[in-house]
Amino acid sequence: MKVFFKELVFSTRSRFEVVDITERVEALVAESGVSNGICVVHAPHATAAIVLNEHEAGLLADIIRLIRELFKPGGDWRHNMIDDNAHAHLASAVIGSTRVVPVKDGRLLRGTWQNILFIEMDGPRSYRRVVVEVMGE
Amino acid sequence: MKVFFKELVFSTRSRFEVVDITERVEALVAESGVSNGICVVHAPHATAAIVLNEHEAGLLADIIRLIRELFKPGGDWRHNMIDDNAHAHLASAVIGSTRVVPVKDGRLLRGTWQNILFIEMDGPRSYRRVVVEVMGE
Amino acid sequence: MKVFFKELVFSTRSRFEVVDITERVEALVAESGVSNGICVVHAPHATAAIVLNEHEAGLLADIIRLIRELFKPGGDWRHNMIDDNAHAHLASAVIGSTRVVPVKDGRLLRGTWQNILFIEMDGPRSYRRVVVEVMGE
Repeated sequence: MKVFFKELVFSTRSRFEVVDITERVEALVAESGVSNGICVVHAPHATAAIVLNEHEAGLLADIIRLIRELFKPGGDWRHNMIDDNAHAHLASAVIGSTRVVPVKDGRLLRGTWQNILFIEMDGPRSYRRVVVEVMGE
Repeated sequence: MKVFFKELVFSTRSRFEVVDITERVEALVAESGVSNGICVVHAPHATAAIVLNEHEAGLLADIIRLIRELFKPGGDWRHNMIDDNAHAHLASAVIGSTRVVPVKDGRLLRGTWQNILFIEMDGPRSYRRVVVEVMGE
Repeated sequence: MKVFFKELVFSTRSRFEVVDITERVEALVAESGVSNGICVVHAPHATAAIVLNEHEAGLLADIIRLIRELFKPGGDWRHNMIDDNAHAHLASAVIGSTRVVPVKDGRLLRGTWQNILFIEMDGPRSYRRVVVEVMGE
């Protein structure tokens, strides 16, 4: 069995931002040498999320708008009495900061419209990380 | 280590529909020959979701109603300017299209009320797939 | 390859409650002897959730408040005609009752603010379980 780890490191420029990391994750899956197994895409952050969906500009804007509507930045959350990012924590908790994708024949088994998207909800940040783990044989 | 893959293929008949795939997933776990490991249940679609919950008719209707209320089909989403299924993309992104369940002694370690449910949110579709991966020893 | 299983068992005292299980999960990761792999934290319950986020008292209260606002306990859900916990089922389905965290060099690769939180939404319960599975080498 192989267990391969590598980190993506990048910065974000806005409070809310969608960073498409599909190509970088796919390159790491290829680099891992794993033919069959799983890829764990994990953001070790409590104010960001990882989702799978289509990279269409309108939809990316809709995702941010939905997050604003459901999790209410600036709302009278108790966490906002000591910080200003309760919405980002809440969205990260509910949506999740990890996605698992099967790897088969050396490739991610993702659908045509399933890009891997890092959702920044408390930017800008100079140092965001995504752990890419590929495990299998 | 074993890595076993098989796909479930089915059609859906309504825009919103819950398809209970528990028995089919359990049959594949048995077929895999894996005693201890994980089962990844992954829909390679950006307009569907996979969840674990109770198969009670009222609750299945409640799940669909909740999705309609939170993700607003027909809402003035930007993605709806080029398509009509933004709600399904948003719900798939937030809820997730993959669930991971432990496998122990050849069986899914699921709770009594945790059936495996495929949630169609942009049907009817003639060709929906769920990848079932069982990995372990 | 190693596959290690152990269960955490505990009771909850309120209808809604956040139980921080980070230390207990980390102790099991150490006990497993797995250096590199994954940890699956899985609640085999349909009325609870597992999330990763910061253990700050205000934020934990915000998480419960958000769940109440989005999933509406006491709402006129159909499942409430036969029971009174539709909100907990809905939240468990959407948020998820399982999280997967990479294990590297014998430790969970979690962010500084990513504690592992069990969210009780239909308590009090005398017998709640969390399956901790550590798989790797």
